[in-house]
Amino acid sequence: MYRFTCDYEEGCLPEILSLLNDTNLVQTPGYGTDVYCEHARGLIREFCSCPEADVHFLVGGTQANLTVIASVLRPWQGVLSAQTGHVAVHETGAVEATGHKVLALESPDGKVSAEALKKALDAHFGDPHSEHTVQPGMLYISFPTENGQLYSLRELTELSRICRGAGIPLYLDGARLAYGLTADACDVTAADIARLCDVFYLGGTKCGALFGEAVVITSPALKKDFRYMIKQRGGMLAKGRLLGIQFQGLMEEDRYLSLGRRANSLALRVKKAFTQAGVPFMIDSPTNQQFPILTAEQLDRLAPSFAWDPWETLPDGRQAVRFCTSWATREEAVTALENALAGL
Amino acid sequence: MYRFTCDYEEGCLPEILSLLNDTNLVQTPGYGTDVYCEHARGLIREFCSCPEADVHFLVGGTQANLTVIASVLRPWQGVLSAQTGHVAVHETGAVEATGHKVLALESPDGKVSAEALKKALDAHFGDPHSEHTVQPGMLYISFPTENGQLYSLRELTELSRICRGAGIPLYLDGARLAYGLTADACDVTAADIARLCDVFYLGGTKCGALFGEAVVITSPALKKDFRYMIKQRGGMLAKGRLLGIQFQGLMEEDRYLSLGRRANSLALRVKKAFTQAGVPFMIDSPTNQQFPILTAEQLDRLAPSFAWDPWETLPDGRQAVRFCTSWATREEAVTALENALAGL
Amino acid sequence: MYRFTCDYEEGCLPEILSLLNDTNLVQTPGYGTDVYCEHARGLIREFCSCPEADVHFLVGGTQANLTVIASVLRPWQGVLSAQTGHVAVHETGAVEATGHKVLALESPDGKVSAEALKKALDAHFGDPHSEHTVQPGMLYISFPTENGQLYSLRELTELSRICRGAGIPLYLDGARLAYGLTADACDVTAADIARLCDVFYLGGTKCGALFGEAVVITSPALKKDFRYMIKQRGGMLAKGRLLGIQFQGLMEEDRYLSLGRRANSLALRVKKAFTQAGVPFMIDSPTNQQFPILTAEQLDRLAPSFAWDPWETLPDGRQAVRFCTSWATREEAVTALENALAGL
Amino acid sequence: MYRFTCDYEEGCLPEILSLLNDTNLVQTPGYGTDVYCEHARGLIREFCSCPEADVHFLVGGTQANLTVIASVLRPWQGVLSAQTGHVAVHETGAVEATGHKVLALESPDGKVSAEALKKALDAHFGDPHSEHTVQPGMLYISFPTENGQLYSLRELTELSRICRGAGIPLYLDGARLAYGLTADACDVTAADIARLCDVFYLGGTKCGALFGEAVVITSPALKKDFRYMIKQRGGMLAKGRLLGIQFQGLMEEDRYLSLGRRANSLALRVKKAFTQAGVPFMIDSPTNQQFPILTAEQLDRLAPSFAWDPWETLPDGRQAVRFCTSWATREEAVTALENALAGL
Repeated sequence: MYRFTCDYEEGCLPEILSLLNDTNLVQTPGYGTDVYCEHARGLIREFCSCPEADVHFLVGGTQANLTVIASVLRPWQGVLSAQTGHVAVHETGAVEATGHKVLALESPDGKVSAEALKKALDAHFGDPHSEHTVQPGMLYISFPTENGQLYSLRELTELSRICRGAGIPLYLDGARLAYGLTADACDVTAADIARLCDVFYLGGTKCGALFGEAVVITSPALKKDFRYMIKQRGGMLAKGRLLGIQFQGLMEEDRYLSLGRRANSLALRVKKAFTQAGVPFMIDSPTNQQFPILTAEQLDRLAPSFAWDPWETLPDGRQAVRFCTSWATREEAVTALENALAGL
Repeated sequence: MYRFTCDYEEGCLPEILSLLNDTNLVQTPGYGTDVYCEHARGLIREFCSCPEADVHFLVGGTQANLTVIASVLRPWQGVLSAQTGHVAVHETGAVEATGHKVLALESPDGKVSAEALKKALDAHFGDPHSEHTVQPGMLYISFPTENGQLYSLRELTELSRICRGAGIPLYLDGARLAYGLTADACDVTAADIARLCDVFYLGGTKCGALFGEAVVITSPALKKDFRYMIKQRGGMLAKGRLLGIQFQGLMEEDRYLSLGRRANSLALRVKKAFTQAGVPFMIDSPTNQQFPILTAEQLDRLAPSFAWDPWETLPDGRQAVRFCTSWATREEAVTALENALAGL
Repeated sequence: MYRFTCDYEEGCLPEILSLLNDTNLVQTPGYGTDVYCEHARGLIREFCSCPEADVHFLVGGTQANLTVIASVLRPWQGVLSAQTGHVAVHETGAVEATGHKVLALESPDGKVSAEALKKALDAHFGDPHSEHTVQPGMLYISFPTENGQLYSLRELTELSRICRGAGIPLYLDGARLAYGLTADACDVTAADIARLCDVFYLGGTKCGALFGEAVVITSPALKKDFRYMIKQRGGMLAKGRLLGIQFQGLMEEDRYLSLGRRANSLALRVKKAFTQAGVPFMIDSPTNQQFPILTAEQLDRLAPSFAWDPWETLPDGRQAVRFCTSWATREEAVTALENALAGL
Repeated sequence: MYRFTCDYEEGCLPEILSLLNDTNLVQTPGYGTDVYCEHARGLIREFCSCPEADVHFLVGGTQANLTVIASVLRPWQGVLSAQTGHVAVHETGAVEATGHKVLALESPDGKVSAEALKKALDAHFGDPHSEHTVQPGMLYISFPTENGQLYSLRELTELSRICRGAGIPLYLDGARLAYGLTADACDVTAADIARLCDVFYLGGTKCGALFGEAVVITSPALKKDFRYMIKQRGGMLAKGRLLGIQFQGLMEEDRYLSLGRRANSLALRVKKAFTQAGVPFMIDSPTNQQFPILTAEQLDRLAPSFAWDPWETLPDGRQAVRFCTSWATREEAVTALENALAGL
């Protein structure tokens, strides 16, 4: 059985395990004040060419999202997001549990368009009775999006311009940033993201770490007291060093981008194999998640040897499913899938 | 430099690292639905002789506390706690951030007495205008307490009896449970805790794991939908297996209790050494945390070779400090401290 | 200038003012424990043929909604509502501020259909990973809806049946209940609402009182401790008698329904006058709110003498607007509008 | 039966009822945007010599407190209050329900001392691990306090100085401000309060209105978007005019202070009568609340003709009780009490 279900089915990069082994008995102070965290912060600042950024390590994506969003918003503000955004759908109301509405924007492709953003801002701030509705207080986007899409540099620049014009921070969820930055179609760099966003996170859990996300705050206005917020929301790991050590492992020797490149190239082989088998896609994804549309018969034929994630049942009964590669996907698995698809 | 600052300054038991290494490339489903978690749940149910218990793995102590407490209480209820309880003091208002007041009970020794509990319940439920004040909705205790104290079986039984009489759950924070259960003075077993409490957690972070706490729900009324709550509060690890693997490592071959016993015996050597040096204690602790009271001169003399945690400055200028042993404390460190104290 | 902007532009029924005058110097205990409140509770129980109901008086609609909803839901639950529901749109995120998501259901006419409700419940409870999404915990409907629509007895019965089958309470917002119950097209009685819903409120603010809404809890499961919730959310009026006195004034001598009938009949005159002038409607409303679609020229011609509420700008530039009658609308105003429309 | 239980047992000043009668059928826009509110805002600005203040009308005291406090604090901040402060004790955790801890300061007399305030601020901001505890974000005081005490101008000035030094707003709860400002012992003016505090409220409910409190924001930093907060927390009255009309009634012709003077003078007669009867007091109150300590026999003798509020049972079994005068207390009631006490 070859599993393509998601990008968090294995442990972590072997280099990270080695570092954990090597440092295991070193004594350090807790809560992220250790030398490993400090070193990893430096690597991340360098990675995104932003020496002034504050870098904080959190445990997981939902936690990073709720902690960042609740630290930014005033009580009467909400966060704008594509209606398919992770915070809008798949976090069990984590943002609402902090008291804030997710203001869902219609989005055919999972991205927030400049038009949709402008329309929402105009509708609110142009309303003489605006205090009866939730005030848009920040924009959440994911890169790549939940269905593998990328913003172009032009698009990201435009969103940033609108947000800054409206005085609302732009927050980018980079749970799969390694796969996004290294896609062939990507013209955005980590430095662009640091420059155009006010806060973002660089994902570890789905990009080769055991767990952990690095929140990068570039806007000076958002930096103050963020550690209080981490502690209050249960995100301040006693052995914070674990996160520093892991991000050191990810960032050193270009590993973060290398693993992204490798996973993407395997995903493109998967994509090509489906295409050659005449299988259509729900959406054209340039990153490590692929969304072929399969009939029940086709799925039955693949089921004995492969696992995937069900995504959406189409009106005609066919299923859009997700095949995911990762830092850990073995070439052997992809070859097996190619062979199976050739005979589909 | 020998550090006695806390019990979370190193990584984890070597056996846990081995398990992480061995399982690293095995593919499993996410979010705690894997075989490692299932296996570890069984070990924990056995450990506390409670085959019907629900076991959930969370990442850290503050997170476990806020998730459990917010899942139990109705909006107008608060949680009773000793005024020195971790939830009352050292979690940056994590409980309040979920909407609930911590109802602090006076406590000279960090424990909740049956008298204080009864008085608080009577004061509220005997008040004809009770709806103007927060309703006590559960009791939080820690075992050992924040300053190393233990409840006797008689005390725990009495608290449980009062709570059940009042219809409020009893929650036990076992961040340092390994050290509590194995203290010479302890007449309480894990099975007693499971029987007398409605929910408790068995600490990993401070007891030999990299991170992680095992929440054990024994009351059927509190089991429903708890996974929603974990997800919403950011505590559902994508690679949930990491927690299962670690608790497997802790629970197998009696490691959890063994490490507690060892740390306690080293702590008693520390205690004896201070006593022989004529140093008094803030409180008489039978567990791995010791709280000697030292003069500035004494601290100066120890400072070049030892680190500790400052605890409280007394009115006369002396300092109560914490010396902590753990699963990772080396005998060599204790011997060095003994020698230093002999010449104090 | 005749204002048809809303149904809360004047003070209150003269009979209510008289009662306030007559009772002004009588001394009563506070917080709704006085004889006036007790009397009014009896009148309301009788009004909805539900002698076992709990009746609580709150100050306003948003407050009633947030207090009821937050008292019913568990932390991981949300409230289902039509996407146009007041709680979904016009309460500045009041529900989210209590920690809960409003789960918006698509609705072309402002009502929740049995189909949409079933689909949402099936989608959630049929999902093997349901804990990653907000659990539907209750259904909110308004009667009449925000755009004046009514549920038929058959529709309400069906929604009630589905909710009870799923174990989720049905909550009805009756801000304009007087106008709903007395519409010609209405086949639902107050007793039906009490029987089919688990909790609802009978609006005072928009139906002739100075302010105040009467929350009626018919489900025994929802009654406990509700007064705590009122107090906590700032809704427990010190001089609670004011609400009792007002609802006494509204309920006595059939005044509540009489004022509804009168306002509806004036609204139908307005509707007829627009229709005869060839003006189309955004929606066919049988109650006191009418939504004609007017051109800029038509609006200009009416503007010197009449005021209304802007509602929605159509793609072609025309405006849907709201003309509202109330218990206080003078016949003279309606006649003037009829005359103006005759010459439009 | 003469009731001295509290200061909210009757309706309102007759002049307010007259104004409500006179304006009943005037049409105005809703939500506090009407001419009555605007007029009343002007009167209040004049009353406290602060032409730049923002004035908002809310319905009740708990609501005013929770709305102000939650609008000021950041998520990780709490509000400092005397341990006997209304927000700390008698609001069913309303502040905690907004996510914030009430940081209770020890207070023998119900006031916050400069020493206690400084100690709390130093303890937090001097702690190298401050992010593990709730950050003090504002100071709440009441004037008069819950037990009738006043701050001197010197005391208030000193608290203000410390708060401004620490960058935290000072909030004054003036639920009984009319009685405080007019006490013989008071050397503080409304203008002083406006100048020394950043936000305060001028109580209506307990000072002659049917209901309503006027929140006055003097600090420019706290003004923005406050109307969103009022709406979200359920405090924006549709018929906001009711509050404007009432505060117009209170502020015109010096009524607010006149009613305070009268109630205080009656309270001093009550105080004198108890003193002459040899009855001791729990605390020496210069305002409209008096707290005599009575034996069970004395209470039994008074019970047939007088009502009071039980306050606290002393260790020796005697009861401290509250006798309250108000704008509505009749001279006849005080004379009757004097006569009864003369024969006690």
